[in-house]
Amino acid sequence: MARVRTDRRSSAAIVATASPSTPSPQPAKPARPRLVGVVGLGRMGRAFAENLGAAGYPIIVWDASQAQIDAVVRPGIIAAANLADLADCDVVITSLPDDDALASVATGPQGLLDMLATGAIHISMSTVSPPLSRHLAAAHAARSQNYVSAPILGNPDMAHTGDVFILAAGPHAAIDSVRPLLEVLGQRLFVIGEEAAAANLMKLAANVLTALTMQGVAEVLALLRKGGIDHRIGFDILTNSLFDSRVHRTYGGKIANERYCPPGMPAPLAVKDLRLALAEAERHSAPMPAASLVHDRLVAMVAHGWTNLDWSALGLLAAQDAGLPDIIPAESGTAAPTTEQAAIHTDKTSALSVTPIDHVYPPSTTGKRSTDAGKASMLATPLAELTHNGSDPSRLISPTSRSR
Amino acid sequence: MARVRTDRRSSAAIVATASPSTPSPQPAKPARPRLVGVVGLGRMGRAFAENLGAAGYPIIVWDASQAQIDAVVRPGIIAAANLADLADCDVVITSLPDDDALASVATGPQGLLDMLATGAIHISMSTVSPPLSRHLAAAHAARSQNYVSAPILGNPDMAHTGDVFILAAGPHAAIDSVRPLLEVLGQRLFVIGEEAAAANLMKLAANVLTALTMQGVAEVLALLRKGGIDHRIGFDILTNSLFDSRVHRTYGGKIANERYCPPGMPAPLAVKDLRLALAEAERHSAPMPAASLVHDRLVAMVAHGWTNLDWSALGLLAAQDAGLPDIIPAESGTAAPTTEQAAIHTDKTSALSVTPIDHVYPPSTTGKRSTDAGKASMLATPLAELTHNGSDPSRLISPTSRSR
Repeated sequence: MARVRTDRRSSAAIVATASPSTPSPQPAKPARPRLVGVVGLGRMGRAFAENLGAAGYPIIVWDASQAQIDAVVRPGIIAAANLADLADCDVVITSLPDDDALASVATGPQGLLDMLATGAIHISMSTVSPPLSRHLAAAHAARSQNYVSAPILGNPDMAHTGDVFILAAGPHAAIDSVRPLLEVLGQRLFVIGEEAAAANLMKLAANVLTALTMQGVAEVLALLRKGGIDHRIGFDILTNSLFDSRVHRTYGGKIANERYCPPGMPAPLAVKDLRLALAEAERHSAPMPAASLVHDRLVAMVAHGWTNLDWSALGLLAAQDAGLPDIIPAESGTAAPTTEQAAIHTDKTSALSVTPIDHVYPPSTTGKRSTDAGKASMLATPLAELTHNGSDPSRLISPTSRSR
Repeated sequence: MARVRTDRRSSAAIVATASPSTPSPQPAKPARPRLVGVVGLGRMGRAFAENLGAAGYPIIVWDASQAQIDAVVRPGIIAAANLADLADCDVVITSLPDDDALASVATGPQGLLDMLATGAIHISMSTVSPPLSRHLAAAHAARSQNYVSAPILGNPDMAHTGDVFILAAGPHAAIDSVRPLLEVLGQRLFVIGEEAAAANLMKLAANVLTALTMQGVAEVLALLRKGGIDHRIGFDILTNSLFDSRVHRTYGGKIANERYCPPGMPAPLAVKDLRLALAEAERHSAPMPAASLVHDRLVAMVAHGWTNLDWSALGLLAAQDAGLPDIIPAESGTAAPTTEQAAIHTDKTSALSVTPIDHVYPPSTTGKRSTDAGKASMLATPLAELTHNGSDPSRLISPTSRSR
C-alpha cells in the first residue's frame, strides 16, 4: 500500500495520482505572498484569516456581510470594500458555502477570474462539486492564473487551532508556492495530484464517512439508552476501544453530549455535501446505499426545521425516532425561520446574502448587485432551492465568463 | 461525562451501571483457579486457551471437533474427552458461535449448569443475545454458580496477541476473582455492571458500529476507484486524518487490501450478530435504519455464497455492485457448499458439528448425542436455519434444565 509521510507541518505528505490532466501550471509567485485575500468569513474562513494574520501574512478580507468583516479586521488584516479590492493579491483563499457562492465569486462580474493578475493563485477551500472545480481549474489556467483545490477535513474548532487536514490538488508549482501558507492553516497537507477535482471528490468521500459515522453512533447510542445503559458510558467504552478516531471522538462526541448548537456544519450544508457525493456516485455508477440513507436522514432534519443545528443532530433525530425525551435546542431554527434567518444563523452562508442564486442562476450579465435586492430575492426563495445546485457547473457560469 | 480509567492491564476500568438486578453473587473462588476450562476452540477460543496456558494457568479444553482439540493440546493444556471432564474446573470459558451452541453447552445434558461446582464461574465470551445471557445468569445463580458475561471487541489476530478489549458484566465478586485471568486475554477490561446482559447489548452495539464503518469504507472506496483515485492512497489519507481508529485501520484495511480470506468473522456469523442487534432494537423500540441496511448487505453476501469470506467483504459487494472487476477469492465458499462444509470452513462454528440445533430446538430430553447424527442433521439443515435463532432464550432451553 502506498504510504504517506507522517511529519507534522514541516514535511507535508506528497501523494501523486497517476494521471494529471490539468493544463500546464503557470509561473507561480514566490513563497511569501505580498498580499493574501480571504473571501468568505464564516467560522472557517475567519479562522483561516486570523491564523494567517497571526503568522505575519498581510491579509485583506471580504465577505458579503459587513459585520463578518468587522469581526475579523485588526492590525495586519484589512477590509476590502468589494471584491475588486483583492486585485493586488497574489493569493486569494475562498471559503464559501456551496457551488453557487463560489461560482459567483470566481466567475461573476469583478470576480476572481476577471480580476486576478497573471500567475496569481486561487486556493479554493470550499466543499464544492468536482465538476465546478474542474471548470474553474481550466478557466484560471486559460487566464494564466493558478487554481489550487484545497478542501479541508475538520470542523471550525479544529480550523481555529490549526488542526484541520488539508487535501490539496492543482499545479505542483502552485502548491509548492503556497505550501508554507497551507501549513499554517492545517496540521497536515495531503497533496492528491494535479487534477483539482480529485481533492473535491476525496473531500466528499470523507464527508460521507463522517456522516455515516455519526449515523452509526446515533443509532447505537439510542439503542443503548433504550436498553438501560448510560449512553455516555457506552460512548466512553467505544471511543476507548476500537472506535478511537478523531471522527468518533469529535463528531460522535457531540451526539454523546447532545451538543448540537452552535453548528459546526448546519444541516442544510450537510444535505448539500451528501447530495454532491451522491451526484458523483451517480455519475461514476457507484451505488452508495448507506450514503443515500444518511442523506435522507439529513433531509428529515431540515424537514423538522433544524436548519441551525449541527449535522451531528442525526443523534437527536435517532433519539426522537426512538421515543426518547430529548430536548430540541431553542436555537434549532424550528420556529419556522424565514430563509433570510436561516442564512444569517447558518455558518458559512453569510456570503449568500449578497451573492444570491439569482446572480448566477439564471445567469445575470448586468454586473449590478444590491444587498437589498439580494436579501429580497432570498426571502422569496424556498430553502430547498437555496441549498440546491446541480453537478453541471456550466449551469452556474455566467455567459460573460464562459465566452472568454 | 463519566470517564473510564486508561491504564493497560494493571488497572482495568470499572464502570458501574445504575441498577444491578442480578441475584446476589455466590462466594467466588480464589484469584488463581486450579483448573480453567475452555469450551469452543475456534480462532478466538484457541487464542484464549493458548494465552492462558502460556501465562501458566492449567487448562483443559473441549470442542466438538477432535482436530480443533488436537491443535491446541500441549504441555499445560490437556484435552477433555467430553464436557463432563470439565466438572473440576473452577472457571470455564465458553467461546461459541451463537445462542444455540452456548445454550446447548450450558443447559444441555452434562452441560455446565448440571456439572459445575458451587462457586464455579462460567465466563461467557461469545456474542449472544442479551435474553440468553439474562437467562443463564439466573440459572447459574440458582445453582450457586457464577455467570460472567465477557464478550470481546476485536478479531482473532487481536485475540492472538492479547490485544482485544473485554466488556464484562456479572457479580462483582466473581469479576474481581477472574480479573487477572481476563487481563491476560485482553489489553483492557471494561466492567459494565452486575447485569450480565448489559455486556452483550454493548457488544452488539459495537458490532453494529463496526459493520457500519466497513459499509462506509466500502462505499467510499468504490466511489474513489470509479472516480479515478487509487483507493489505497485514499484509504491512507482517511486513516491518517479524521478516520484513524482501530476499527478503520483494522477492519477497513481489509477492504483497502481486498483481503477477505481467511475470515476473522465469516459473513453468516455477522448476519447473526446484526440480527441479534436488530432484535434488541425491536424489543426496545429503537429504529436502526442504517443497521438494518447493513444487515441486508450481509444477507446478500450469504446469498452470493460467500460463507467463508470475512464480513469486511462488504467491500467486495460494493465493488461488485459498482461494476469493478474484483476477484471473488477461490476460498469464498461460493462453490455451493454443503452446510457441513460451511460449518467446517467457518471460524468458531466447529462446536456446532456435535451440538447441532436439534439438540436444543426442538428441545431434546434424551441426553443422547452422536457425532454422526449431528453431522447428518446439519447436512439436512439449510444454512438459513443454521444461523437463525430467536431472541427468546426459553425456546432454547431443554425442559430438563428449565424444570430444575
